[in-house]
Amino acid sequence: MKCNLAVIKGDGIGPEIVEEAMKVLDAVGEKYGHTFSYEQILMGGASIDVHGKPLTDEALEIARNSDAVLMGSIGGDTSTSPWYQLPAQLRPEAGLLTLRKSLGLFANIRPAYLYEELKEACPLKDEIIGDGFDMVIMRELTGGLYFGERHTEEVDGVRVATDTLTYSEEEIRRIAVKAFDIARKRKKHVISVDKANVLDSSRLWRSVVEEVAKDYEDVTYEHMLVDNCAMQLVNDPGQFDVILTENMFGDILSDEASMITGSIGMLSSASLAEGKFGLYEPSHGSAPDIAGQDIANPIATILSAAMMLRYSFDLDEEAAAVEKAVKDVLADGYRTVDIMSEGMKQVGCREMGSLIIEKI
Amino acid sequence: MKCNLAVIKGDGIGPEIVEEAMKVLDAVGEKYGHTFSYEQILMGGASIDVHGKPLTDEALEIARNSDAVLMGSIGGDTSTSPWYQLPAQLRPEAGLLTLRKSLGLFANIRPAYLYEELKEACPLKDEIIGDGFDMVIMRELTGGLYFGERHTEEVDGVRVATDTLTYSEEEIRRIAVKAFDIARKRKKHVISVDKANVLDSSRLWRSVVEEVAKDYEDVTYEHMLVDNCAMQLVNDPGQFDVILTENMFGDILSDEASMITGSIGMLSSASLAEGKFGLYEPSHGSAPDIAGQDIANPIATILSAAMMLRYSFDLDEEAAAVEKAVKDVLADGYRTVDIMSEGMKQVGCREMGSLIIEKI
Ligand SMILES: CC(C)[C@H](C(=O)O)[C@@H](O)C(=O)O
Ligand SMILES: CC(C)[C@H](C(=O)O)[C@@H](O)C(=O)O
Repeated sequence: MKCNLAVIKGDGIGPEIVEEAMKVLDAVGEKYGHTFSYEQILMGGASIDVHGKPLTDEALEIARNSDAVLMGSIGGDTSTSPWYQLPAQLRPEAGLLTLRKSLGLFANIRPAYLYEELKEACPLKDEIIGDGFDMVIMRELTGGLYFGERHTEEVDGVRVATDTLTYSEEEIRRIAVKAFDIARKRKKHVISVDKANVLDSSRLWRSVVEEVAKDYEDVTYEHMLVDNCAMQLVNDPGQFDVILTENMFGDILSDEASMITGSIGMLSSASLAEGKFGLYEPSHGSAPDIAGQDIANPIATILSAAMMLRYSFDLDEEAAAVEKAVKDVLADGYRTVDIMSEGMKQVGCREMGSLIIEKI
Repeated sequence: MKCNLAVIKGDGIGPEIVEEAMKVLDAVGEKYGHTFSYEQILMGGASIDVHGKPLTDEALEIARNSDAVLMGSIGGDTSTSPWYQLPAQLRPEAGLLTLRKSLGLFANIRPAYLYEELKEACPLKDEIIGDGFDMVIMRELTGGLYFGERHTEEVDGVRVATDTLTYSEEEIRRIAVKAFDIARKRKKHVISVDKANVLDSSRLWRSVVEEVAKDYEDVTYEHMLVDNCAMQLVNDPGQFDVILTENMFGDILSDEASMITGSIGMLSSASLAEGKFGLYEPSHGSAPDIAGQDIANPIATILSAAMMLRYSFDLDEEAAAVEKAVKDVLADGYRTVDIMSEGMKQVGCREMGSLIIEKI
């Protein structure tokens, strides 16, 4: 198989972690007879530095014409980096938002699970962890407050700012279908999160989810209010299989969920369009403070590449091989500094990548 | 002093926990020479059952003419209670939202701290708890998505729902002032939470907070993105003193913060208007499953009554006496079932109230 990837190395630790993911893809290609070609594009701060804006039309077109996008991470330190002196629409994050919307990447999938080997790093007590947890957050990514009309005006000399949260039933239906589809391949339980006691958009969300659920008699589901969900993630993470929610709630809850695993350096994500196209990036940020020191953890990016193999190229066996390689390296006791614990062997970013390749 | 209170017992465990708080206020009155008069009004499910709506104009007027409102909790089981078959604006919660808006209760204060005695119930590991944590969430309560224009329409046969998030600089300024004022009496640190990399309302929020901060040179402050805050609460709760945020983010983060204390049965809240008027209620819900069994924990409501003494009546000494009485009863080893642990003495709702009174 020939896979044409657009690659966004991005800012901070982005370049070094993407390097390792590319090495892993090449190893997979060699073993299973696929070719991965990479066309690099700039986005975020790296693009601002060269082009004065976070995403050029040319870069966007290259991404659009690729089979899938592999990304590191973008952005810098918001209080010290000059990128954050720019108007909002020229900052690094604006590039990512434009890319998501332009490429129709409406379904953001973020797994959050406890690695048995990294249990010590989990901030929750053992009684709460119980038998562990393993959930997927299915976040709507191209609607809601992120992409609604917004403006700031002066009314009688007083500044007033407005953002708009809009969802159509079609936007809700397509993400709900994705959530139920993925639940079917997992523990068959969907928790749809909203604020239906306050928001019209949440009430529509509920009613569409209920319609979609009718087509999935083998999948159970329930509704949960967002405030309650923020509590339940801390209180009893084991109850969740698939969490389905809108854009802003998903932003907050997926970050909370990633933190309770205690190992955000391990968590991948996929942002999918209709069909097979998708963008794959780690759940964590660009960590500018440790950039360029060869100490970043490349595993989240490598596992994102595995998700790419599975979702964009239907290479399930290859994806599983990458995931198993990661597990084996952890079992052998190798750790990057962020997940280091007593008695383990500490390695850098590049060495971690090489160890994983050896296992493939 | 003569204090005229409107009392909303509400639904579920509301009546029993409010009874105990009233007993405590009477004991304070006796000892310190104050009179508390109580006018009961219906709100939530209790009002729906009698009047067909969650808050009548008459009840609202009584609340408006009182010196302060003491409240239990409202609402029932959303999947089984007939109240949730009603249209949204007739459900129990709608009464509370109307009350907040009509009485101008814009500043919601929710303390979240670890009780040394209840450390075992905290879901976080000891390494994360460290020396404990003690924060206050200052949530804007009458603006944002909760009270913006909303509607659901059909566009070409497709349902589309819209909610609006609006803030004026005046709404932001008055809540920011409250946050910095309270920080001054505490550890002098404000973390203002927003999503300024996406929302116009958050960018206005930031700029107004920065203006207000100039008047508080003795208080340090920083901005934090809401997704990061949801992580930091789990990762390092000790870093927070005062969290300042808008309505919806505050709903989510205050519930998350209350859960990480491990003892939501202990957490009070105050919702203040300009001046001295306020509504005081526990942070927890109406727990219909344990209602009427005399096992609910009345402490959150009793501590809310203490907040009332402090904020609405300037009775600092009396408030401190109530808080100390609660601490002493815990130190003596008495626990309601929700906070029970080995070696402690389990008591019911009424007995817990009586024990606290004895200490006053
Ligand atoms: C960078 C930012 C705009 C983005 C978001 O809020 O979606 C990030 O937090 C994420 O979750 O991918
Ligand atoms: C009952 C509900 C409308 C309310 C809110 O969302 O404000 C509650 O969750 C709270 O936090 O007081």
